[in-house]
Amino acid sequence: MLQFTAEAADPTGARVGRVTVRGRTFETPAFMPVATQGAVKALTQEEVRQLGGQIVLANAYHLYLRPGTSLIKEVGGLGRFMNWSGATLTDSGGYQVFSLAPLIEVGADGVTFRSHIDGSEHFLTPEAAIEIQHDLGADIIMAFDQPVGYPADRAKAQEATARSDAWAKRCVDAHMQAGGPPHSRRASLRSQADQALFGIVQGGFDLDLRRESAGRLTSLPFDGYAIGGLSVGEPKEQTFELLAATAPLLPEDKPRYLMGVGKPWEIVRAVASGVDMFDCVLPTRVGRNGTAYTSRRKVNLKNAQYERDLQPLDPECRCQVCERYTRAYLRHLYKAGEMLAARCLSYHNLHLYLRLMEEIRQAIRERRYAEFVERHAKEVDENG
Amino acid sequence: MLQFTAEAADPTGARVGRVTVRGRTFETPAFMPVATQGAVKALTQEEVRQLGGQIVLANAYHLYLRPGTSLIKEVGGLGRFMNWSGATLTDSGGYQVFSLAPLIEVGADGVTFRSHIDGSEHFLTPEAAIEIQHDLGADIIMAFDQPVGYPADRAKAQEATARSDAWAKRCVDAHMQAGGPPHSRRASLRSQADQALFGIVQGGFDLDLRRESAGRLTSLPFDGYAIGGLSVGEPKEQTFELLAATAPLLPEDKPRYLMGVGKPWEIVRAVASGVDMFDCVLPTRVGRNGTAYTSRRKVNLKNAQYERDLQPLDPECRCQVCERYTRAYLRHLYKAGEMLAARCLSYHNLHLYLRLMEEIRQAIRERRYAEFVERHAKEVDENG
Repeated sequence: MLQFTAEAADPTGARVGRVTVRGRTFETPAFMPVATQGAVKALTQEEVRQLGGQIVLANAYHLYLRPGTSLIKEVGGLGRFMNWSGATLTDSGGYQVFSLAPLIEVGADGVTFRSHIDGSEHFLTPEAAIEIQHDLGADIIMAFDQPVGYPADRAKAQEATARSDAWAKRCVDAHMQAGGPPHSRRASLRSQADQALFGIVQGGFDLDLRRESAGRLTSLPFDGYAIGGLSVGEPKEQTFELLAATAPLLPEDKPRYLMGVGKPWEIVRAVASGVDMFDCVLPTRVGRNGTAYTSRRKVNLKNAQYERDLQPLDPECRCQVCERYTRAYLRHLYKAGEMLAARCLSYHNLHLYLRLMEEIRQAIRERRYAEFVERHAKEVDENG
Repeated sequence: MLQFTAEAADPTGARVGRVTVRGRTFETPAFMPVATQGAVKALTQEEVRQLGGQIVLANAYHLYLRPGTSLIKEVGGLGRFMNWSGATLTDSGGYQVFSLAPLIEVGADGVTFRSHIDGSEHFLTPEAAIEIQHDLGADIIMAFDQPVGYPADRAKAQEATARSDAWAKRCVDAHMQAGGPPHSRRASLRSQADQALFGIVQGGFDLDLRRESAGRLTSLPFDGYAIGGLSVGEPKEQTFELLAATAPLLPEDKPRYLMGVGKPWEIVRAVASGVDMFDCVLPTRVGRNGTAYTSRRKVNLKNAQYERDLQPLDPECRCQVCERYTRAYLRHLYKAGEMLAARCLSYHNLHLYLRLMEEIRQAIRERRYAEFVERHAKEVDENG
C-alpha cells in the first residue's frame, strides 16, 4: 500500500519525508498541482513535471461527469489517460457535490444532486464514490464526506460531521472489499486494489467536534488523514488554531493532508503544524486572472503601473517566463486576451509554489524552520 | 536591405531560396505563423522556433491600437518586445481597417475608422501606416492598401485598386524619406532605416486590373511583392487562375508573398505558381476550434467518433502532442473547455504546416514538385 517515511523533523513540528505508493514517490511537504478535469489548467504534464511536480490532484466529481469513469478505466486509469507518470490523487467529490452541484437531497445513505454541466440527476453514496475512484485508478483516493461550510451552527456541524464519519467507515469497508461493493450496479473487479485511501477529518470550527471526528477517523485503518473544511471563509487565525489543535491528533506515522490550502504563506505556516500534503487552485487560477506571486509582493498585471515595466514578473525568479518576458509584454498579452498570458502566469506561479516546497523541505532538514516561518510571516501583509 | 537568393527552381515554376533581412534569414517557400497581437495564439515563441518557424507576422493595426507603438518602439521593436529572435513582418493595417474596424470615411488621403476595441476615432494615411511600422520595427513592412472584397463590381474594384496603387507610391516615398514624413505629428528619427518594404498587388477578380496593378507596383522600388485580396470568398479555381496569371508579372529576383493563404493544399498549389511566402491564421484558429489537420483527413474532435479513440491525432505525426496524447484525451480537454486542448491542437497544426514547408522545399530541390502537387491534390476533397 502506502509507505510514509519521515526523514527529519524540526522543533516546530514540521517534518520532511517521502511517500511511496504503487512504486511512485513524492517528497513531503508536497504541493499537489490541481488537475481538476485531468489537466493542470493552461499547462502540459511535461511542464508540471519539469517544474518539480511529483503528484497531481484530480476531481472524481468532474471526471465522473465528464468524460465518465469507463473511458478512464479502459485506458488504464487517470495517470495513463493524462499521460502523467508521477503520482495521482483523486478527491472523492464530497466537496464538489456540496459546493458546485445543485443539491436535490442529502440522506443517510448518500446525496442526490444535479450535474452542473447538463443538469442530469445523480445519486452518490460512499460506496459509489469509492468505486468511481477505483475506476479512475489514482494512487491515493479520498473518503466521501459532507463538509461543513462557514459559518455553520453547532447542530448542523455536528450532524454533517457524524454523517461524514459514518460514511468514512463505509468507504473503508467498500475499499477493503475486493470486487467492489455488492449492491453497486457498477460492480467490477478491483484491479486497483493497491490504491491508498485517506480519511477526512471534519468538525467545522468547533474544536470538540474536530477532536471527535479525529478520534473516529483514526480508529479506522486509513493510509493517511486529511483535514477538510478549513480555509472556507473563516478568519485565518481560526484556521491555524484549529489546524494546530487537530494535526497532533493524527497518527505521526501517516501523511497528513490539509485540503485546499492555500496561499504561499499559509502553506509555510501550516507545515509548522506537521502537515505533509497540500493542494490549491490558486497558482493557476490567480495566474489566469493576471496576477503573479513573487518573492516580494504580488504583481497584478491589471494595474497600469506595469504598462511600461520592462522587468520580469519577479526579478529574483529563474523560471522560463521570468527569463524571457517583461511585465509590459505579459500585461499586453493579458489585456489583449491572449492565452499565452494565462500560460505564462500559471507557469510562473506554479514554479514559485514548487520552489517554495523545496525551500521548506530544506529549512526543515536544517532545523531552522521557525526562522523560515518568521521570514515568510511578512508575506501575510504583502501577499495576503 | 533585403537579399533574396533563389537556390533552385522546379519545372512547375516553384522555387526554393532564402531571404536575408537585417541579418535574419528564412528559407522559402516560407510559412509565417500569425502573431496578430504579438503572440502566436496559444503558443510560446520558443515553441514556434522549435517547430521550425523562422519568421512571424504581426498586425500593425492591432499593435497600434494596443499596446500602442511607443512602448514597442521604446523596447527596441516587435522582435524584442515579443522576445522573438527570428525574422518579423508587419501587415500594414489596410486589411484590418477595411474588415475589422467600423469605417467612418475613406478618402484619397487616407481612412478614418473607429477602433474595434474602444470605439476611439483614428485617421490612417499611407505615411502614418509606414511610420507606425517604422516604430514597430519589423524586418519587413507592408504598403498600406485598400483591398477589394468579394464580390465587387468592376468600378469599385478599379477605384480601390487605383487608390491602393497611388498609396503604394506614397508608402515608398515615406519609407525612403529619413526622419519620417514631414507632415506627420509623430515624426521621429528612422532607427529602422534598413527595414524592407513590400508592395501589395490588388485588382480584385479582374485579370486586367491585376495586370495594371502589377505594372504600377513593379515600377516602384519595393523589396518584395505581395498578392493581396485573394482567397476572400471567391471560388478556389478563380483564386488559382488569378494567381497563376499574376505571379509571373512580378520580378523573379524578389520574394513573392501570397497574403492570408491558406489551407495546406492551397499552399502546395500556390507554390507551383512561384510564391515564396505565406501567412495564415488557420493552424491556430482551426486548432482552437477543436480540429487537427493530419496527413490524411481532418480530425474534428467535436465528432463523437473520437470519444474512445486511443490513437494520436495523426498516427504518422512525430510531434510532441501526437507522441503524448490520445484523441480521446484531447477530445475530453476540448469538451471540458481546457486551454490545453487549444495549446495541443495549435501546436500540432503548426507542426504540420512547418513540416509541409520543409517537404515542399525538398520536393522543389529534387525537381519533383509536379508529382508532389499531384499527391497532395487529393487533400482538396479530404481536407478541404
